[in-house]
Amino acid sequence: MASATPPYELFYWPHIPGRGEFVRLVFEEAGIPYVDVGRLPEEQGGGRAGIRRMLEADGPGMPPYAPPVLRVGDLRLAQTAAVCRYVAERGGLAPKTDDDARRADALMLAVMDLVVEAHDVHHPVAKSLYYEEQKAEALRRAPLFLSERMPKWLGYFERVLRTNSAGKGRALVGDALSYADLGLYHVVCGLDYAFPRALAALAPQVPRVMALHAAVAARPRVASYLDSPRRLPFNDHGLFRHYPELDLPA
Amino acid sequence: MASATPPYELFYWPHIPGRGEFVRLVFEEAGIPYVDVGRLPEEQGGGRAGIRRMLEADGPGMPPYAPPVLRVGDLRLAQTAAVCRYVAERGGLAPKTDDDARRADALMLAVMDLVVEAHDVHHPVAKSLYYEEQKAEALRRAPLFLSERMPKWLGYFERVLRTNSAGKGRALVGDALSYADLGLYHVVCGLDYAFPRALAALAPQVPRVMALHAAVAARPRVASYLDSPRRLPFNDHGLFRHYPELDLPA
Repeated sequence: MASATPPYELFYWPHIPGRGEFVRLVFEEAGIPYVDVGRLPEEQGGGRAGIRRMLEADGPGMPPYAPPVLRVGDLRLAQTAAVCRYVAERGGLAPKTDDDARRADALMLAVMDLVVEAHDVHHPVAKSLYYEEQKAEALRRAPLFLSERMPKWLGYFERVLRTNSAGKGRALVGDALSYADLGLYHVVCGLDYAFPRALAALAPQVPRVMALHAAVAARPRVASYLDSPRRLPFNDHGLFRHYPELDLPA
Repeated sequence: MASATPPYELFYWPHIPGRGEFVRLVFEEAGIPYVDVGRLPEEQGGGRAGIRRMLEADGPGMPPYAPPVLRVGDLRLAQTAAVCRYVAERGGLAPKTDDDARRADALMLAVMDLVVEAHDVHHPVAKSLYYEEQKAEALRRAPLFLSERMPKWLGYFERVLRTNSAGKGRALVGDALSYADLGLYHVVCGLDYAFPRALAALAPQVPRVMALHAAVAARPRVASYLDSPRRLPFNDHGLFRHYPELDLPA
């Protein structure tokens, strides 16, 4: 039924993986074709100009707040977790029962909360200031994030994996991979990029999280995607930034 | 069919409105009975001890991360926006079409993002420190929140109200009140408590947001709730705190 597939368009900034990456992973694992509009040339409606034009249009349909935005017909859907859920439902990556679907939603929202906390380690004062302008505050926030928040968050996901006997360590909810697992996979990638020493120190306490991370990376579609030019590398303009002074001391 | 209604139990800390308030408003406007477990006496399973006991139980069902948590059968659902959506779907406060339901979800998630940004004005370094221990950082963050972020967020909701002709200014999505409107109502309440001078200065630029806020407060069920002892007052232990030094100068 490929001809019945709507043309899914993902709008996200082309220079960082950012929040768009959570959506890409769901598309890739589901095997659903999508257009990554921001990465098209500007002449073809892509680039930052293409994203801005879509954001600034008052219609059709409700304007979105910020990328990532999924455009399907008149729907311009924002909010990473909402977009991931939408794609997952169409791609067999959302749990089938209502209770389990709600659980996956709550877990994906938890992943996105952790993303904000991790981002704000390098931007505790304002998004509009450079890191260098808020480095003193970042240096105060970072050790507390690493010693309190990161263990609490990853410890929670570890507990969910431990108590979900149906998942056998391969799924947070039920017995099948869901978009929440892909979300946890990517946030661990981000933490590993930003805080490699802290994550290495914490890993022995969250073995199930680390095993799930490895298992997701080894899935054929994910592995193929990670090897492709569609996967953007992390860099120091995005959500997750590697400033060694914010990581655990060597 | 009252006998078929599941016993909805809301778990939230009893001493602050906090994120629990977003859920209470949906229950109240929907007219769905609920048990506010945290406000029961400890002898009846309530209080902070009752909340902690529920959080610490590994089962039945997936453990939640943090309150607010809605317990229905084996489901312990966390994440404010997910809980509000659940209750709204059962109470006629979620849009009927799939596209509009997604839009309401994205708006409620946007409200919750704004809540985090507003909270972090007084806690930019760590949740585990007192305000007084991060006051210097808060004093740096506050003017940027008030001059950049609050206008951007409320300006976005203003734009949604302006472009939704079906709502006639009374609904963000479609032509009927949804949980997203209740969420916007309460975040404006919170901003008005925390930053009354800044909100008064911004109000003329977001007339539709302010009119929606007034219209929600005047709805019979909401008005009756606001007058009841079930509505907890804001205080300086919660999400929204009134520290005059963080507001606009007088």
